[in-house]
Amino acid sequence: MTSNFKELKRECYEANMELPQLGLVVYTFGNVSAVDRDRAVFAIKPSGLPYGNLKAEDIVIVDYDNRVVEGKMRPSSDTKTHAFLYKNWVEIGGICHTHSTFAVSWAQAQMDIPIFGTTHADHNTKDIPCAPPMADALIAGDYEHMTGQQILDCFSEKKLSYEEVEMVLIGNHGPFTWGKNASKAVYNSRVLEEIAHMAFLTLQINPKAPRLKPALIQKHYDRKHGKGAYYGQES
Amino acid sequence: MTSNFKELKRECYEANMELPQLGLVVYTFGNVSAVDRDRAVFAIKPSGLPYGNLKAEDIVIVDYDNRVVEGKMRPSSDTKTHAFLYKNWVEIGGICHTHSTFAVSWAQAQMDIPIFGTTHADHNTKDIPCAPPMADALIAGDYEHMTGQQILDCFSEKKLSYEEVEMVLIGNHGPFTWGKNASKAVYNSRVLEEIAHMAFLTLQINPKAPRLKPALIQKHYDRKHGKGAYYGQES
Amino acid sequence: MTSNFKELKRECYEANMELPQLGLVVYTFGNVSAVDRDRAVFAIKPSGLPYGNLKAEDIVIVDYDNRVVEGKMRPSSDTKTHAFLYKNWVEIGGICHTHSTFAVSWAQAQMDIPIFGTTHADHNTKDIPCAPPMADALIAGDYEHMTGQQILDCFSEKKLSYEEVEMVLIGNHGPFTWGKNASKAVYNSRVLEEIAHMAFLTLQINPKAPRLKPALIQKHYDRKHGKGAYYGQES
Amino acid sequence: MTSNFKELKRECYEANMELPQLGLVVYTFGNVSAVDRDRAVFAIKPSGLPYGNLKAEDIVIVDYDNRVVEGKMRPSSDTKTHAFLYKNWVEIGGICHTHSTFAVSWAQAQMDIPIFGTTHADHNTKDIPCAPPMADALIAGDYEHMTGQQILDCFSEKKLSYEEVEMVLIGNHGPFTWGKNASKAVYNSRVLEEIAHMAFLTLQINPKAPRLKPALIQKHYDRKHGKGAYYGQES
Repeated sequence: MTSNFKELKRECYEANMELPQLGLVVYTFGNVSAVDRDRAVFAIKPSGLPYGNLKAEDIVIVDYDNRVVEGKMRPSSDTKTHAFLYKNWVEIGGICHTHSTFAVSWAQAQMDIPIFGTTHADHNTKDIPCAPPMADALIAGDYEHMTGQQILDCFSEKKLSYEEVEMVLIGNHGPFTWGKNASKAVYNSRVLEEIAHMAFLTLQINPKAPRLKPALIQKHYDRKHGKGAYYGQES
Repeated sequence: MTSNFKELKRECYEANMELPQLGLVVYTFGNVSAVDRDRAVFAIKPSGLPYGNLKAEDIVIVDYDNRVVEGKMRPSSDTKTHAFLYKNWVEIGGICHTHSTFAVSWAQAQMDIPIFGTTHADHNTKDIPCAPPMADALIAGDYEHMTGQQILDCFSEKKLSYEEVEMVLIGNHGPFTWGKNASKAVYNSRVLEEIAHMAFLTLQINPKAPRLKPALIQKHYDRKHGKGAYYGQES
Repeated sequence: MTSNFKELKRECYEANMELPQLGLVVYTFGNVSAVDRDRAVFAIKPSGLPYGNLKAEDIVIVDYDNRVVEGKMRPSSDTKTHAFLYKNWVEIGGICHTHSTFAVSWAQAQMDIPIFGTTHADHNTKDIPCAPPMADALIAGDYEHMTGQQILDCFSEKKLSYEEVEMVLIGNHGPFTWGKNASKAVYNSRVLEEIAHMAFLTLQINPKAPRLKPALIQKHYDRKHGKGAYYGQES
Repeated sequence: MTSNFKELKRECYEANMELPQLGLVVYTFGNVSAVDRDRAVFAIKPSGLPYGNLKAEDIVIVDYDNRVVEGKMRPSSDTKTHAFLYKNWVEIGGICHTHSTFAVSWAQAQMDIPIFGTTHADHNTKDIPCAPPMADALIAGDYEHMTGQQILDCFSEKKLSYEEVEMVLIGNHGPFTWGKNASKAVYNSRVLEEIAHMAFLTLQINPKAPRLKPALIQKHYDRKHGKGAYYGQES
């Protein structure tokens, strides 16, 4: 089968296949997309297809207005949320959505995940935001499109940068994460699940555990992401 | 060995073998059955046989009155519960019973599992019911038969449809799930375990976590099961 | 290497090797023994040897007075506890000791594990006893021998039968389990860990969860172990 | 590629590769070093390199003043902490740092891990210390160097011996462990994670669980580490 999007589909497929390996999904409970900014399309998992059956050629190509450009299958039911984010956040290259156990539980608790330690600060300096449930009128309308709007509104109200905080919880639903490419988006989902697990345990051990102090938040974030970053092999 | 029920046994065997792979059973703590409506019989796991030793030809064929139709082994000790459900709920094709950790813990707590999120609403719109413990007189009688009656009574009292809610907790015992076939019944057991895990964590994080609001319950259920369902590849 | 105890060593070795596979031990934190009643000796794991390195010929043969009968290695530091139990409880054929996570946590909490469900009642009708910590004078004396005495005293005070209740928690230490042979002793350790996990979760979900009612305790125990038992393939 | 430190790199590499196998790290969240006392250098993991990609020849050789002696990659961002500890604690041969789930959660709770049982006392006789968060002025300075100082100060204030207690929690960050060699340091990280898990569960089951009594602490520690130690195969 020839395709104009072979490489993009491959990237999307491989990122999707990481999810069951990382223990972030059961059955069909997740989806990853990868964008091609030059051609203004993204590749996304087909709806409701078990990971065990997924093949690279099943991946669907969609444009920012949710029109299928290539592919025989119906794209993920969350496609409009992905499209909305790609349209509005021009620097992101991949998006991941899962129903991972601990992140979903914080979303169901309708609570932001407090920043308790350096594992969290290594990735961003803020509490992980939990967007409140959507108004009934919007749910009845273009639900998945409005889920994207809900994420944007949450970031706007809390004055967060999507380039720093690459993760959000949708209240009562679950996490969306993103990054410079699909693989980084998946990485952020795994990191979020670990942060969510540790924050849960921290509050069980000490319900009065204080948030990480600002000096440590800044130090750890800057070690990896600041001007004088010295973590990793890139200078 | 020739058999009149080779295909039915195979379906039942394969569904049973999913249980240890999905982490839902240890040793012999579970059983799955598959029904043949035309011949009014069902295939079920033999009693007390470890999954590691199970072969397709060990599966026992039983009729709705609990008589063994084919097979040398004694069928599951829960056979009468399966028979009762097949007799009364004519649309189901498979039944699964496990002692999975989180579902059993809710059953031991004698509490319904509240609907806290969209993972739950993707599957049904109600709290997962927990049937109260059986009256002593019935326990002393035809116990496994009455377990089936207990499930029916629970659904009747709570005005639930077995075609929508494909899972129940037996108080102090554990979960039964069902579906259009044996594989779907096993799927429901895995989903129930995940829902039970998340609901446990949700209440630990926020003991006052509210139930999912009706508009979101309906939206997510209808996305997958309503008239205009658009999840998955079937139209 | 010739041995007079080849079969006994093999049974002991295989039972020991189940422990890491079942997730019940890390490193060297456990030991299993198997007894030969005719020759009044038992086979036991060498002390401090990682499971990854263990070979059947490393197993040590010891008599009831803790004298090594065959084997070059030092037997488990818990050998005297095993010897004491074999001497006093003439019907048991194997003993298992682990530091499995949930059973140890109940032991550290110094609490009996309440009987909350049928998973528990399928195996015995009592709360799993937790023996209180030993008196200081006894600790300073023949500690491992007295650990055996401590178990016997606990069963005597609580009027328990070792033939029915095949498991105990040593306060602040961890579980010992036993059975008709070494493999059954290991089985009981795995079952105990599951019961301990579920009981922990049950109390987290509902701190006022009631114990299983007597009629259900008796029914489930008798299904498997009573006169008219009908669970499994043995009649 | 020739190297003057082939064996040292190999030891360091193998100890690092144990971390993902033991479930103690995800992605790049950890590092192990191994020291060569005669040559006054240590081998350490490169910064930010995923374990899946790590090769023995990637390991970096560093002296106690943090100068790279051999290796093309940048050493771990925590290198100065390792160097500081090697310089000050002359008897240790290896150091391990992870972000393992339960140990980090206690660190985030800013609490010492109480000694609740013999699993703990088999390894040391004290609560696992949690060093308080660093003063802001020090964080802004030579942070990783001061993390080493922070560990030393914690041991000094609590009058602990690094030769007995081979583990510490850095408040809001995570665990450091050490030992006679790199493999023992990793062993201690795994043991610490288990102790942290069990202590968490113990307090959930019984918030008033008492610490292990002194006679049992001493008995279990001496069985393995005292003058008349009789655990294991070494005399």
